[in-house]
Amino acid sequence: MGIEIERKFLIIGDAWRTAVTRSIRMAQAYLGGDRCSTRVRIEGESAKLNIKSLSTGIERLEFEYDIPVADANVLMAELAGKRVEKIRHLVALDDVLFEIDEFLSDNQGLIVAEVELESAEAAYPKPAWLGREVSLERRYLNLALAEQAFAMWPDREAILMELQSC
Amino acid sequence: MGIEIERKFLIIGDAWRTAVTRSIRMAQAYLGGDRCSTRVRIEGESAKLNIKSLSTGIERLEFEYDIPVADANVLMAELAGKRVEKIRHLVALDDVLFEIDEFLSDNQGLIVAEVELESAEAAYPKPAWLGREVSLERRYLNLALAEQAFAMWPDREAILMELQSC
Repeated sequence: MGIEIERKFLIIGDAWRTAVTRSIRMAQAYLGGDRCSTRVRIEGESAKLNIKSLSTGIERLEFEYDIPVADANVLMAELAGKRVEKIRHLVALDDVLFEIDEFLSDNQGLIVAEVELESAEAAYPKPAWLGREVSLERRYLNLALAEQAFAMWPDREAILMELQSC
Repeated sequence: MGIEIERKFLIIGDAWRTAVTRSIRMAQAYLGGDRCSTRVRIEGESAKLNIKSLSTGIERLEFEYDIPVADANVLMAELAGKRVEKIRHLVALDDVLFEIDEFLSDNQGLIVAEVELESAEAAYPKPAWLGREVSLERRYLNLALAEQAFAMWPDREAILMELQSC
């Protein structure tokens, strides 16, 4: 159990790719929940069950447990909603880890960075490729992207322009 | 992961108590879910997260994972719905295990037995204290008892009479 303090940003251009140290393919889907989101995720060769409080803010209560990949496959196929697929790229800058999610499938084109912080006010590096903060926009939650994919956003074209603007 | 094949019965009288080999105090609550119920349970000194397909039938898809008791306490306090409290008594008859749930708190008075079987048609012992089968009545699901406790059932008195009728 922990408190997750996370800020989320759009990513501009491709310059960040040279700084990537590791990339992991991920597929995830949600089981629903009244006051929390329950997520099943396959990441590389392992799988996890994750429970997070439902709030769009920067701080969220979080629980995570390893589960067998075989279980994750059945949970996703039989009991979960739509899948979100992405490649998570890791970029470390000044001891701060950026998790850059390059979405695939129905969310292709969308690239966002998440940075986990000690406190909501903690300083973090601001490389040129770090774009607008979207921490408080619900539609950027992976849970929301499972329900309403980027392909269906009315302002998708404008956002794609913004992502290529450097 | 497994398929749970379970039948559920009302329990009549007190004669079953002499056959109990073990009793465990349990508290459980639910996180919600679209096509499944996600349950947090503290049983004795351990805790489990359980995911079951939402169907009132005899067969249900089931997943279960151990979690720290400290996590279970926070999940129940912060993210789950109302709690169901009970004492689970174990009674073994002819190699078949009956789990007899004696509910407490808002569900006090209700006592039901669950028997897990190899198949929906498998034979099982029928001791005199085994009452009417309620496998297909949704309101006897623990999930349903969390939402609408036995104390609120309009026919509660009639059921209590039935349970004492031997």
